Amino acid sequence: AQVLPTKKAKLQRTPFEDRAKLCKNAVGVALFSLMARKKTNLCVAADVVEAKALLDLADAVGPQICVLKTHCDIVRDWTDETGTQLRFLADKHDFLIFEDRKFADIGNTVVQQCSGGVHRIASWAHFTNAHALPGDGIVDGLRTAAGVENHGLLLLAQMSSAGNLLNKEYTSACVEMAKRHTDFVFGFISQERVIEGSEGDAFVYMTPGVKLSQEGDGLGQQYNTPTAVIADRNSDIIIVGRGIYKSDNPAATAAIYRKQAWDALA
Amino acid sequence: AQVLPTKKAKLQRTPFEDRAKLCKNAVGVALFSLMARKKTNLCVAADVVEAKALLDLADAVGPQICVLKTHCDIVRDWTDETGTQLRFLADKHDFLIFEDRKFADIGNTVVQQCSGGVHRIASWAHFTNAHALPGDGIVDGLRTAAGVENHGLLLLAQMSSAGNLLNKEYTSACVEMAKRHTDFVFGFISQERVIEGSEGDAFVYMTPGVKLSQEGDGLGQQYNTPTAVIADRNSDIIIVGRGIYKSDNPAATAAIYRKQAWDALA
Repeated sequence: AQVLPTKKAKLQRTPFEDRAKLCKNAVGVALFSLMARKKTNLCVAADVVEAKALLDLADAVGPQICVLKTHCDIVRDWTDETGTQLRFLADKHDFLIFEDRKFADIGNTVVQQCSGGVHRIASWAHFTNAHALPGDGIVDGLRTAAGVENHGLLLLAQMSSAGNLLNKEYTSACVEMAKRHTDFVFGFISQERVIEGSEGDAFVYMTPGVKLSQEGDGLGQQYNTPTAVIADRNSDIIIVGRGIYKSDNPAATAAIYRKQAWDALA
Repeated sequence: AQVLPTKKAKLQRTPFEDRAKLCKNAVGVALFSLMARKKTNLCVAADVVEAKALLDLADAVGPQICVLKTHCDIVRDWTDETGTQLRFLADKHDFLIFEDRKFADIGNTVVQQCSGGVHRIASWAHFTNAHALPGDGIVDGLRTAAGVENHGLLLLAQMSSAGNLLNKEYTSACVEMAKRHTDFVFGFISQERVIEGSEGDAFVYMTPGVKLSQEGDGLGQQYNTPTAVIADRNSDIIIVGRGIYKSDNPAATAAIYRKQAWDALA
């Protein structure tokens, strides 16, 4: 049942600045504009467990990235100040903050999870993501929690982990859900571009599990290379975690990933 | 595609004390034993946003319940002490704590989300739950994070929200995943008993979205009555949230739900 994307036909890419005009969510517009302006389609997954390490990493890779992906719930000493400082670094280096929360509950619950609690995600993240699994109520709940003016949402259309249950039928249902909520949902976490043609240009496609070398992690993660993701599968943004934050020089390594991913667009 | 359970054939119920002997996870064994000893199959969903309110509610409904269901990430002033106090109340009133985290990420990430961060879920929750969506790696990751000795896991086999994507094929895949991990997975969040016969007796079935009166919440939640869930669909435990914590007297209301749910087993 698992989606195993293969090489797609060469995409005649619409420039990101033109796709900004097609997108109906303000954060999506900002992201496409930023990518065109800064010439980067690299997202770094900052999976570190201390606030200082998170901020240091954000400051180091900031110049190379369009998006910083966070897991605030793995940071042991997270405080309101961590969110404030992240936002400061986002302004300093011109990137957006994506809290990879993978919301997966009913609408009434995600309202609280997104706006409340210790993390108050909606107060510092530009966008977050959700599984389509619980139905449209999850999108409605997150829209209620965050608003469409300064926030956006990605849906998880495909995953890279072994034996995942996001089959073609599921991906299609997820795509249809996104099309029903274009004021708020501006893209997908996916292994490939999941909407073809000009309709698909209005959404962004971000692909995790990217490393320069292909291998696994022993817990089901399966890696892809930047070129495979961007040139072969027509995704837009590579998400790189351990390949960068575990390297000796995250800033320099990020620059290498950035160039490979951007060159793969041509 | 949505699962809309209907009335099932009258179940010849195996006593909970006997099901304790069939279950392979220590927390599952403890839960079945507790239900038999305390004569309750009521779980209260403590969806409140302040630590004091959470602890007060747990203390008030504690004598009526087998399980307290938490969303630690909606509590704005959560500290380590909140988890410690919850655990104290669990011992005082003889109930288990179920953090309804709905983990939904890859194995490597859920390890950190379950054991680390501000909430350190594995340090105070007896069990938690996960979506089967990312594949077996999510179970392996949570097993790594929490251990099988003092922790257990439920999988979400069905949801109650409108338009959810957990169809029959998905539920079957989820059930098969649980059967592959009986050392750790001891049951399901579901709308009905999802495994028939003696094999199914080894697992517990917990059903959310229960109220004495049927209605919706405007964000996709659809409610069921205690009798419909236990007597008609052969689930084991009702999960009641707003019906109890928003009532004028949660302790007295919990006692009403408790009696209805227990009587429905007969």
